[in-house]
Amino acid sequence: MATTTKSENSANPTTTTPTTTPVTVIGLGAMGQALAGAFLKAGHPTTIWNRTAGKGDDLVAGGATRAATAAEAVRAGEVVVVCVVDYDASQSILEPLAADLAGRVLVNVTSDSPERAREAAEWAAGHGIAYLDGAVMIPTIMIGTPEALIFYSGDESAYKKHEDVLKSLGGQSAYVGADHGLAAVYDLSMLDFFWTSMSGLVHGYALAAKDGVRAEALAPFLKAHISLLDLVIDETAKEMDGGEYPGAEGNLAVELAGVEHILHAAERRGLDVSVLRGVRDVAKRAVDLGHGADSWTAVVEGVRNPA
Amino acid sequence: MATTTKSENSANPTTTTPTTTPVTVIGLGAMGQALAGAFLKAGHPTTIWNRTAGKGDDLVAGGATRAATAAEAVRAGEVVVVCVVDYDASQSILEPLAADLAGRVLVNVTSDSPERAREAAEWAAGHGIAYLDGAVMIPTIMIGTPEALIFYSGDESAYKKHEDVLKSLGGQSAYVGADHGLAAVYDLSMLDFFWTSMSGLVHGYALAAKDGVRAEALAPFLKAHISLLDLVIDETAKEMDGGEYPGAEGNLAVELAGVEHILHAAERRGLDVSVLRGVRDVAKRAVDLGHGADSWTAVVEGVRNPA
Ligand SMILES: NC(=O)c1ccc[n+]([C@@H]2O[C@H](COP(=O)([O-])OP(=O)(O)OC[C@H]3O[C@@H](n4cnc5c(N)ncnc54)[C@H](OP(=O)(O)O)[C@@H]3O)[C@@H](O)[C@H]2O)c1
Ligand SMILES: NC(=O)c1ccc[n+]([C@@H]2O[C@H](COP(=O)([O-])OP(=O)(O)OC[C@H]3O[C@@H](n4cnc5c(N)ncnc54)[C@H](OP(=O)(O)O)[C@@H]3O)[C@@H](O)[C@H]2O)c1
Repeated sequence: MATTTKSENSANPTTTTPTTTPVTVIGLGAMGQALAGAFLKAGHPTTIWNRTAGKGDDLVAGGATRAATAAEAVRAGEVVVVCVVDYDASQSILEPLAADLAGRVLVNVTSDSPERAREAAEWAAGHGIAYLDGAVMIPTIMIGTPEALIFYSGDESAYKKHEDVLKSLGGQSAYVGADHGLAAVYDLSMLDFFWTSMSGLVHGYALAAKDGVRAEALAPFLKAHISLLDLVIDETAKEMDGGEYPGAEGNLAVELAGVEHILHAAERRGLDVSVLRGVRDVAKRAVDLGHGADSWTAVVEGVRNPA
Repeated sequence: MATTTKSENSANPTTTTPTTTPVTVIGLGAMGQALAGAFLKAGHPTTIWNRTAGKGDDLVAGGATRAATAAEAVRAGEVVVVCVVDYDASQSILEPLAADLAGRVLVNVTSDSPERAREAAEWAAGHGIAYLDGAVMIPTIMIGTPEALIFYSGDESAYKKHEDVLKSLGGQSAYVGADHGLAAVYDLSMLDFFWTSMSGLVHGYALAAKDGVRAEALAPFLKAHISLLDLVIDETAKEMDGGEYPGAEGNLAVELAGVEHILHAAERRGLDVSVLRGVRDVAKRAVDLGHGADSWTAVVEGVRNPA
């Protein structure tokens, strides 16, 4: 399957990129295996390597080539994707292979900080390696689907050249900028929103449960409310970027009073309120800074001025 | 307009409820005025009263009757809706009118705690007043629309009898149970989720901005992520109600590590992290209680066991 060449179309002079590209996947944890599987499925000749032997038998059965060493793996790929636990691990694998990587495209989709991505990019630039940093925003089970989102940042021409190859990992692949740290910045910012929301969700359910309300009874209303959040994401973005928070509907002082009511209700019911206390404190600081008549977006003034 | 009788259909014996019902609105703040306006628009004879005179001229011009006293207002309505700042205010108006209210349906849509709603319900029961507590989940501008959500709880037969009347205030009106505190419980639980999410949204934008990413660049990805949240609302509800958090995809210990990364990135950028610290601490407590291999829903164990 991996050797199927989808198109050798030389009649059309604009189609210069072959639709299959030799790829290498380094790191065969849960995510690395999913990535290699998606490359195979898309018909790319795929070479794999993992620090500890014995991983990836299914991939070999599916047509992947197992390299004996990391250097051999790197040399087999035009695009080399690395997915290990963190950048300490990825740099410990990659640094001895700088000469082998030169002239190839290195795509590090290991999760780490923007700072670590930028350090790795400097190292790569010093060795003539085209470098993309990636951030995988989806669980393994979604890898290779049209809905899968992976952020990339760094070398734009490398991204453009291999966009189709990278899209076999996720249809929603997005190049977000030349600064190699940006994929991680998008990752962190999205998950900041996501995990904070998830904390609010569980807390809301816990609050309702204290008065005998089942989560399944509340859920349909929360889902209806989500459509409101969808609108609010755009409105809040406009106010953030503009640096003004006019607050036509509702205002922060009234909303702060609402948060206080929730906080007290939760406290009276013996629930942890550390997240709500944070929400209240930051909003209160924004009000104290003079934003009581502004919209909720003005909370950013509290975020930017820690106590 | 308010005097138009939409139907006097006595030919159909099953249609015993007239489609117009004399209603009274007490409290003509922003919300009270919106409610009275929606009643008028739906054709219900509407009587209004406010503590401070001089409010509601537009409503009178639109066909409302201004009562000289609160008692007169109450006596004009089959359904009496009260919307003032809080329950201290509503009880100060209503308590002297107990005799006038007897035999009528009192609907208090003033926002307050479940406890205050239950107290008011006891008072009403002691005076033969059919009582519904309501919670308005939408801004004034949405009142009277098919999308508008208002929760009601308390006297079910009163709700059923006047459901159509109440639906003229909001098409998504929902009766959530006989315990009069439940409308407020649903209100608090939903807003717990909503304001916590909104804090995460602003914080995510602020984090991205520190590395030069505009909120409008991030917004489309957040909106795509919202659809994920939609699924997660149901899954989390099932685990909450079942009291087991199997965690097939992802696990709390790994997710906690992700939250730590976000927290450190935000701290390094000089942002307030009090909300994220709350998110981290509660998740960490759940992990410490033995839920590291469970799903995010297990955070509820941290919520239920405050430090
Ligand atoms: N799993 C997901 O759903 C998911 C989602 C989004 C992002 N991610 C990110 O994807 C990356 C990989 O995650 P995963 O789920 O695949 O993790 P995993 O299943 O725990 O696998 C970890 C991988 O890292 C390797 N590794 C660890 N320490 C190493 C070292 N010092 N030197 C060389 N290799 C080392 C392991 O090799 P050995 O086999 O030799 O130990 C293994 O291949 C992480 O950055 C994670 O945050 C994962
Ligand atoms: N506005 C919204 O978008 C919205 C959304 C959801 C829920 N709500 C809830 O709706 C309720 C009313 O809100 P609102 O926006 O209409 O407030 P508002 O514009 O500030 O009006 C407050 C109302 O309360 C009356 N009031 C205050 N203290 C009183 C007292 N001691 N005795 C008698 N009347 C008193 C005021 O009468 P005077 O004119 O005499 O001062 C006025 O009618 C609140 O519980 C609020 O939480 C509002």
